[in-house]
Order: sequence, then C-alpha cells, then structure tokens
Amino acid sequence: MKTILLSAAILAGALSTHAAIQSKTIDYQQGDATLEGVLVWDDAVSGPHPGVLVVHQWLGLTNYEKHRAEMLAQLGYVAFCADIYGKGVRPKDTSEAGALAGKYKSDRALLRQRVNAALDQLKKSELVDPKRIAAIGYCFGGTTVLELALSGAEVNGVVSFHGGLDAPSPADAKNIQCKVLVQAGADDPFQKPEDLDAFQKEMRDAKVDWQITFYGGAVHSFTQPDPGFSNPGAHYNEKADKRSWQAMKDFFAEIFATH
Amino acid sequence: MKTILLSAAILAGALSTHAAIQSKTIDYQQGDATLEGVLVWDDAVSGPHPGVLVVHQWLGLTNYEKHRAEMLAQLGYVAFCADIYGKGVRPKDTSEAGALAGKYKSDRALLRQRVNAALDQLKKSELVDPKRIAAIGYCFGGTTVLELALSGAEVNGVVSFHGGLDAPSPADAKNIQCKVLVQAGADDPFQKPEDLDAFQKEMRDAKVDWQITFYGGAVHSFTQPDPGFSNPGAHYNEKADKRSWQAMKDFFAEIFATH
Repeated sequence: MKTILLSAAILAGALSTHAAIQSKTIDYQQGDATLEGVLVWDDAVSGPHPGVLVVHQWLGLTNYEKHRAEMLAQLGYVAFCADIYGKGVRPKDTSEAGALAGKYKSDRALLRQRVNAALDQLKKSELVDPKRIAAIGYCFGGTTVLELALSGAEVNGVVSFHGGLDAPSPADAKNIQCKVLVQAGADDPFQKPEDLDAFQKEMRDAKVDWQITFYGGAVHSFTQPDPGFSNPGAHYNEKADKRSWQAMKDFFAEIFATH
Repeated sequence: MKTILLSAAILAGALSTHAAIQSKTIDYQQGDATLEGVLVWDDAVSGPHPGVLVVHQWLGLTNYEKHRAEMLAQLGYVAFCADIYGKGVRPKDTSEAGALAGKYKSDRALLRQRVNAALDQLKKSELVDPKRIAAIGYCFGGTTVLELALSGAEVNGVVSFHGGLDAPSPADAKNIQCKVLVQAGADDPFQKPEDLDAFQKEMRDAKVDWQITFYGGAVHSFTQPDPGFSNPGAHYNEKADKRSWQAMKDFFAEIFATH
C-alpha cells in the first residue's frame, strides 16, 4: 500500500507539474493597421490545444489581460491577447481610453474586423486546435467578444465579463454560431436596463444558446483589482471574480467537451 | 513506469469507488403533524459529512427528489428529502398539487416551520456535520428554501431551481445568514417580472450574498424530465439541467470550502 501511495503521489505530481509559462509578442495586420498581441502558453503544451482569445478593457492591452492569459495557460489553454487599438496605441488615461473605446463602439464593422483579425492570429498558432476556440473579454472586451459572435465567427463560445450589452445590429444574432455566456454585476450602474432587455430579446429571437449570471453586490469591473480609475460604480469583488472564473472554466469544459 | 501507472490506476479506482447508496424513510414531527422524509447516503460515508436538504416540487415528495438525493449521495453528501405536506399527503394530480402548494405558499409561517423541521431532522443524523448544511429545492421547493433562508435558519447556502421568487415578507431578508443561489429559466412564463424585481431589491437591500443565473431557452421545470403535467411553459432542458447542477456543485464547493 505504501508503494502504491508513493507511486500515485509521483504520478499525480508529474501530471500537475507544468513547465514555465511562455509568452511571445506578435505583430499582425488588419487592413493597413499593425496590431500587437501576445500569445501565452505553457511550455508543457505540444500539439493542438484549445485556444482562448482574450480581449482587453477600454484601457487597451495591459498586464491585466496578460495575467489572465497566464491563468488560462496554467489551465492548459493557449491564450492570445488581442490588440484592438493598434500597435503603440495604449491610452495614457481614462480620457484617451474613453475616446478609443468610443471610436470602436461607434464603428462596429471595424471592431468586428479587428477582433476577427486577432482570432485568425490565434487560430494560426501551431499550438492551437482551430476547431476548439473560445473568446473572453472584459468591459469593452466583453462587448467586443459579443460582436465577434454577432459577426458569425467560427468559435465554440464567448464569455463577457462585465461587458456592455448594447448591440446596434441585434438582427445579426442570427449569425451566431457559438454559445454565449454573460457574467454581470447585479449592481453595475453602467449596465443600462434597456440594453439588458434588448440583449435578452436579441438572444431569444435568434434562439442562441445563451446564459447570463448576475453576481449580487458586484458592480462594474468586478474582476479587476485595479480598474484604472476611481468610481464607486466600478471596483473589485473577490467573490464575483472567483465565481465568474469558475463559471468560465465550466463553460470551457462544456464547449471543449472535456467533461 | 508501467508499475507506477498500474498502481495509480488501482488507487484512483479505490478513491472513486463508493459502496451502495443507502436510503431510509424517517418519520418526524412538526407540531402535531407527522412528516415522512427520506435520508439518502453513500455506504462509504462515516463520520460527519456535509448535509443537503432537498425540498420537493408542488407534487410533493416523489421519486424525482429521491433521485436527486441519490445524485447528491454519489457526490459524498448526505441528503434528506423533506416532506412539507405530511405523511401520506401525496397529491394525485395537479389539481391537488395546486391546492396543497397554494396552502403553504399562503401560509409562509407554517411553510417555514415545516422546512425547519426537516432541517432539524437532517442535522440530527450522526452522518451529518450540522455546521455544513445546504438546502436545495425545485419549483415550490425553490420558494421553500428561500423561505428557509428568510427564517434565519443556520445553513451555509440555499439553491433554488426554477422556484417562485415571490416573498410576502421581504424585510425578513435581514435574517438571512447564508449564501443564496437562484437558477432560473430565462423564458419561464411562471416567473413574474415583478417578483424578480422585488427579489433583487430584497437581496440588495439586506446585503445578502446572492447570485442569479438565467438559462436561455429554458422554461419552468427545466430540470425535470417529467414535470407531471403538460404545459409548453414547463419542460425539461438538458443543457440547463446539467449547467445548473454544475453550478450547484461549484456553490457547494465554495460554501463547504472544499476548493
């Protein structure tokens, strides 16, 4: 019995050990624009693995998204941090962030092109199985992954964390080929009730496979320890962060059929 | 290496094996009423385990709840199927079910007494750790476990599956000592929007730790392969069933601190 336990412990150790997390900055194109994303994976990964696109908040691609990509890599996924704004375009403050996010939210066609360019980049990686792809996004990125779904992109699922639900072209929901998970703060003051109603109607009318969870006590930016600005309507909530991450893991297990 | 793999396989088998699921019908009292519940556990369980109270739908305690209790026992929990209506009081049809459910929904004080009597019974079991208790309920039972929470019962969490959210005494939310998880069909025609709004206000005002998930495409009774009546607004939805069960497992892992 002692031998069995020891052997099992060795094996369990071997299974849970992962090599160093690797990352690589990658330039890619969308039209004439150069974008700069980051691919993150676990060294132990070889051969095609499920890929997860990570779309940034209004402040652009920051260490926050890279950290989430590392967390995904630790789970065995290959993650790619998208760059919607463009190489070197990194807002210095919330004023610039608002202007940039506003630009893309006002031009959904361009937003869809940008996020699809990032998706193509993820699918190109030899580490990634292009048939097993998810996209997640935070705030502005949450809106963006919903636009990715609305564009008809071939992904298995999208997850929005405290993203805006406004969709100027709700009829495009008929294009959606993937499952949709929305995770929202029940007390998010930036979430307009009319957008929420319209989103539900949009999903319902198109018979999308969708779910939405509201976390009590959570406001906007509930997953972000440092949302980058001071506002009582936007701050971190550890419980909602952990719960929404777990729900994402369950969603991935379902869409990638690993349980 | 072969030896290690074999040994690990033997150990993994030993860990995942459970003995037969056991059940015992138990008579218990509430006031002058005799109730008849069912305790369900795994034979491999010894010593105090987390306990889960299972509260029935409007049709009373049926094989459906016993099956859920068995599923819980397989997860390592000790489950007790409550009997709200009374020993031998088992509705023959939906007409009787409606009358009985209506009786208790109109008398929340009695409903709370009944569900607390079942809780006491679960806690009495020597197999159960009375400090680690959850309650789940379906339809009428979902409403009932929320009333259990509102009564100030000492439980770690309650989970409502497609339960009515109407609460005649919302101010009692100040009594709530546990976490609350509500799982609802996004298209449940029996869920009144005003009840949903009032429920959210009730939770928010009392600063309860609460969450609600809406499953797209799911109507009432989405966990029940045979809801016992024919209505387009109430039928089984396999995806919502599996997702809500997984969400319950995550919730238990959190409230019982097993991950």
